[in-house]
Amino acid sequence: MSTATQSISTTAINTIRTLAMDAVEKANSGHPGTPMALAPIAYKVWADVLRYDPAEPLWPNRDRYVLSCGHASMLIYSMIHLAGVVRVDDHGKPTGEPSLTLEDLKQFRQLHSRTPGHPEYHHTTGVETTTGPLGQGCGNSVGMAMASKWLAATYNKGDISLFDFNVYVQCSDGDLMEGIACEAASLAGHLKLDNLCWMYDDNRITIEGDTDLAFTEDVGKKFEGLGWHVLHVADANDTAAVGKAIAEFQATIGKPTLIVIRSEIAWGAPNAVGTHGAHGAPLGAAEISLTKKAYGWPDESFVVPDEVPKHFASTLGKRGANESAAWNEKFASYKKKYAREAAEIETMLAGRLPSDWDKDLPTFAADAKGMATRISGGKSLNGIAKNLPWMIGGSADLAPSTKTLIDGAESFSGENRGGRNLHFGIREHAMAAAVNGMALCGLKAYGATFFVFSDYLRPSMRLSAIMKLPAMFVFTHDSVGVGEDGPTHQPVEQLAACRGIPNLLVLRPGDANECAAVWKLAVEQTHRPSALVLTRQNLPTLDRTVYADVEGVAKGGYVLADSDKSPKAIIMASGSELCLAVEAYEKLKAKGVSVRVVSMPSMELFNDQPTSYRDSVLPPSITARVAIEAGIQQPWDRYLGLGGKFIGMDDFGASAPFEQVYAERGMTSEAVVEAVGKLIG
Amino acid sequence: MSTATQSISTTAINTIRTLAMDAVEKANSGHPGTPMALAPIAYKVWADVLRYDPAEPLWPNRDRYVLSCGHASMLIYSMIHLAGVVRVDDHGKPTGEPSLTLEDLKQFRQLHSRTPGHPEYHHTTGVETTTGPLGQGCGNSVGMAMASKWLAATYNKGDISLFDFNVYVQCSDGDLMEGIACEAASLAGHLKLDNLCWMYDDNRITIEGDTDLAFTEDVGKKFEGLGWHVLHVADANDTAAVGKAIAEFQATIGKPTLIVIRSEIAWGAPNAVGTHGAHGAPLGAAEISLTKKAYGWPDESFVVPDEVPKHFASTLGKRGANESAAWNEKFASYKKKYAREAAEIETMLAGRLPSDWDKDLPTFAADAKGMATRISGGKSLNGIAKNLPWMIGGSADLAPSTKTLIDGAESFSGENRGGRNLHFGIREHAMAAAVNGMALCGLKAYGATFFVFSDYLRPSMRLSAIMKLPAMFVFTHDSVGVGEDGPTHQPVEQLAACRGIPNLLVLRPGDANECAAVWKLAVEQTHRPSALVLTRQNLPTLDRTVYADVEGVAKGGYVLADSDKSPKAIIMASGSELCLAVEAYEKLKAKGVSVRVVSMPSMELFNDQPTSYRDSVLPPSITARVAIEAGIQQPWDRYLGLGGKFIGMDDFGASAPFEQVYAERGMTSEAVVEAVGKLIG
Repeated sequence: MSTATQSISTTAINTIRTLAMDAVEKANSGHPGTPMALAPIAYKVWADVLRYDPAEPLWPNRDRYVLSCGHASMLIYSMIHLAGVVRVDDHGKPTGEPSLTLEDLKQFRQLHSRTPGHPEYHHTTGVETTTGPLGQGCGNSVGMAMASKWLAATYNKGDISLFDFNVYVQCSDGDLMEGIACEAASLAGHLKLDNLCWMYDDNRITIEGDTDLAFTEDVGKKFEGLGWHVLHVADANDTAAVGKAIAEFQATIGKPTLIVIRSEIAWGAPNAVGTHGAHGAPLGAAEISLTKKAYGWPDESFVVPDEVPKHFASTLGKRGANESAAWNEKFASYKKKYAREAAEIETMLAGRLPSDWDKDLPTFAADAKGMATRISGGKSLNGIAKNLPWMIGGSADLAPSTKTLIDGAESFSGENRGGRNLHFGIREHAMAAAVNGMALCGLKAYGATFFVFSDYLRPSMRLSAIMKLPAMFVFTHDSVGVGEDGPTHQPVEQLAACRGIPNLLVLRPGDANECAAVWKLAVEQTHRPSALVLTRQNLPTLDRTVYADVEGVAKGGYVLADSDKSPKAIIMASGSELCLAVEAYEKLKAKGVSVRVVSMPSMELFNDQPTSYRDSVLPPSITARVAIEAGIQQPWDRYLGLGGKFIGMDDFGASAPFEQVYAERGMTSEAVVEAVGKLIG
Repeated sequence: MSTATQSISTTAINTIRTLAMDAVEKANSGHPGTPMALAPIAYKVWADVLRYDPAEPLWPNRDRYVLSCGHASMLIYSMIHLAGVVRVDDHGKPTGEPSLTLEDLKQFRQLHSRTPGHPEYHHTTGVETTTGPLGQGCGNSVGMAMASKWLAATYNKGDISLFDFNVYVQCSDGDLMEGIACEAASLAGHLKLDNLCWMYDDNRITIEGDTDLAFTEDVGKKFEGLGWHVLHVADANDTAAVGKAIAEFQATIGKPTLIVIRSEIAWGAPNAVGTHGAHGAPLGAAEISLTKKAYGWPDESFVVPDEVPKHFASTLGKRGANESAAWNEKFASYKKKYAREAAEIETMLAGRLPSDWDKDLPTFAADAKGMATRISGGKSLNGIAKNLPWMIGGSADLAPSTKTLIDGAESFSGENRGGRNLHFGIREHAMAAAVNGMALCGLKAYGATFFVFSDYLRPSMRLSAIMKLPAMFVFTHDSVGVGEDGPTHQPVEQLAACRGIPNLLVLRPGDANECAAVWKLAVEQTHRPSALVLTRQNLPTLDRTVYADVEGVAKGGYVLADSDKSPKAIIMASGSELCLAVEAYEKLKAKGVSVRVVSMPSMELFNDQPTSYRDSVLPPSITARVAIEAGIQQPWDRYLGLGGKFIGMDDFGASAPFEQVYAERGMTSEAVVEAVGKLIG
């Protein structure tokens, strides 16, 4: 049997389909059915639609292709291989090497391969975002589309237009059932993101069986209600109809587009087609043979006819090369005419910061009354935003409380694409995913909400950390210090939960100057997200002529105060409890008890320090240790040891003025003094 | 000025409005605007609609009223006070005392008051579920409506109908923007829950300003797409229109109903009306005076005209007393005719278990190959479900993987209301909230998904814990043991994050028999939710004639093996790492090194044991301690001390066959042996 009689598009589509079958079979693990169903759509989009240069995969104005149903990873891996996407190095420079060879496809789901089970950003060139947890790619795509609009409004000139990229998303039933996708779609409709196109794989199959078991909504009508333009394609194999729908998307102004595409999972497999068994398990050798026969395909594994890569080279490749070359030329002219803006773009896309970006970072005078770190945080954010033009962000409808508005900036909206203040609505989860999407496009993006609602966006923040994205999350109202709103609004375990996420930098400053310092750290990150954890209530601004300088903040934990050279005990604290530690220290000092106060705004940074530094702050010989923090004990055990004493929370909070909650739960300087007394006998 | 010329309904509504204003003012904190806007709706529902007996607040067939926008707590507190709801004791028995006195309302948001900032189930009789985090009440309501249908299908007889309660939800823009509400609405539409009515406060105001800033979707159309019957009321003050819409809800078959009700926040306040400032701050004395004048109300605080409680007594009270008395009579007849079913109902509603409920709990023979705990979990679940008829549950479209189907039971659906297998769809968050709703109605409900997706439902699980609900969550695929699906699907920090939630019982069994034992513990809980954390991969079934009996599981941590009476080191583990600890122990024993293995399936239970027991398991004198767990170190530091060694994860996982990931991350018995060697020198 030969493929010679097939049209090139059919051959290309069958190549994608059979690579997915073969790779899953070889791995003995994975999801063959969806790539088989979606191959024609992916083919059409990559061959005829995407403005994407495989030789310059990070070309800034490329269209973004997001595979939100990340379990169909073999679909994108096949596309990357067949399209000849070139691997970029850690600095984003094309290496000339292929991103994925056929050998890489054969290593699907194997240790250290470039083809892990779900697509991973940064790990595999051509993957624009890490997907797998359903709905996340949809959320990311909204941020990417916002970034495209913002970049256009900010940098395009009447004579030279640099940015107008579109975002294409392949999504599934599972994506659309997830609440985050509905939040994201509602936001996208509100923002009239007409550069955003979701292609929904309406295959009527889920893991438990037919979608009739749990999902019978009228998706099209729902999306119309959300302000989307909705189109239907009756058969995923009808590439002409797919192309027509995409053309209609491109012509649609003022609305994002949803294309509902009916497909059959494991299309072409005589027995597996349309069954949920084809979702997440290999088809088996026999069914694969039968399927290849049905495709008119040789009964061999990993067959890639020469004409297929050539075809992609002559379609996507040629188009992309022209587009990126034209863009590079345009950018060269732009650079001459608009030097400042061009420099900004280059700095931004290199992930660097402007010189003097931190020159207006505030410092705060010592003040016993002080201010809430949400206030000093707002001032710090504004001090930075002034000199960092691509810092944009907003909150999940809490800006008056989180203090995260950029002063003097306008609101980003369907009408004003250049606004830097974002209004995400009460959609924490989509906010975080959109922040990731913006960060993936080079913006210094932040999202803000109350700390207790970090639980609502945790899956997206975890993906920021997995992707090593320097996204920023501002969490105010960080403890029982919330007061009257009570237990549902008082974080208790959230500090431990956030500190637990690998590669997430958790920053909980103890006063206004620590707050400015941690904002600086957050903005400087290039390979990890930050969570700034800030108070609702006022905190005294410490007198740094009496206590140690804030430069220690950069090391995560530092000696804030020492009564003398040989402390008998160590008191550790972060955030709003730092002032209680200092109070206790002063009381003990007055009694002649020699203690040390360690401020610990970031355990992650402290743990990264060499042992010598850590031991100098927390000498192993001093085992009389007390920690106070308005959260659970778990993160502190590492420093307390078996004999230390923790003062904090072990249950949910209470609704009352915050001072009363603190007192009722025993979080007082007196309790610290008493604990030190007991430990040193 | 007097209220004498007002209709009783106007007087009642003004009483609700002014109590909200006054309580917020006195607390100097809270949300006055929404109760002022929604008072007419709440009045109408309580006075004319709810089947609810204030004297018997837990009457099983009562209609449920859920205030999903919990920040409007003064609305429900006023209703509870004015309706004369009687407080129940810890056993659910009416005490004869009022649930909330006027004095309680004056203590709004004060320490230890019955009127905390957001309504708390169990704390205040009349509050059916704890709300505040937006969207959660909507999610709970779907579970309650499912419970009503299930109870009806299971226990109603042709001649005696016991269950047919409706669920009324007051919700807000914020609720409907949250993804969880969309998931819940999609599920409710799919399940044709025609006993569910959401009353949506379309007030066009959010905290940041007008809803136009972020929320412009066509909510009605969206809900039609979700399969709901949608009605509109043009003015919240038009109680007749509200009544008419509710009548239409009651007449609607096969669909849940959404009533979109236009309102004005802070209605009647001359300056504050319609402003976002009226959302979350006291109105101030001057505005309150003006508002009371506009209402034709005395310029005094906390005015409750005598006729208002009397009016509620003669409407809600009388109706409810008749309904509950008739029900009690019916139940007495039912008990005679259907003794078995009546006994079930009584046992269920008392929160007790049937005798012999655990008689078919399996035991597992020692087996080196063993089985995954998701498998032994499925067998245990089925052993219990057989004799616990009101145990129902399902998964977020993962039943073939989580193994949580009840054998032989049917699927709950729009057509089959008696099914015990629930299909939540790929909606983890709504699943957990619905499980809470079912638990609130007395069912032993569970929800299942992959452990990594516990992040998607965390806010609801936190509320299970706050509410002390014995809800059950089954989390399989609990570590890098997931293997090929890779980092997005491999939990790392989730064990720490779940153990951090106060009052959540985390159970991670180390073999099949521990698995049966933890299922028993989960089902026995009456005041806390459980999270069962189970493996995808096989674990050996330990020979309990060689190692300690599983009865130690009930204490959370126990000595599984001791080489002799004086161990030099302790090896601690949970779940899938227990077998590695045992392997290491055997290797060390063979070398003549005396060590102890401690199995720690539940840190919460272990920490609850007396010090004497804990010290007997982990003698303070033995500081050579090694813990191995395929998660982060944080939870183990408590037992490791400063000198212990942890073997586990400190980064995200990798896509590969699971044995390779374990080896690559150094989680092996050899590593344990080496660590013990280093520690004991």
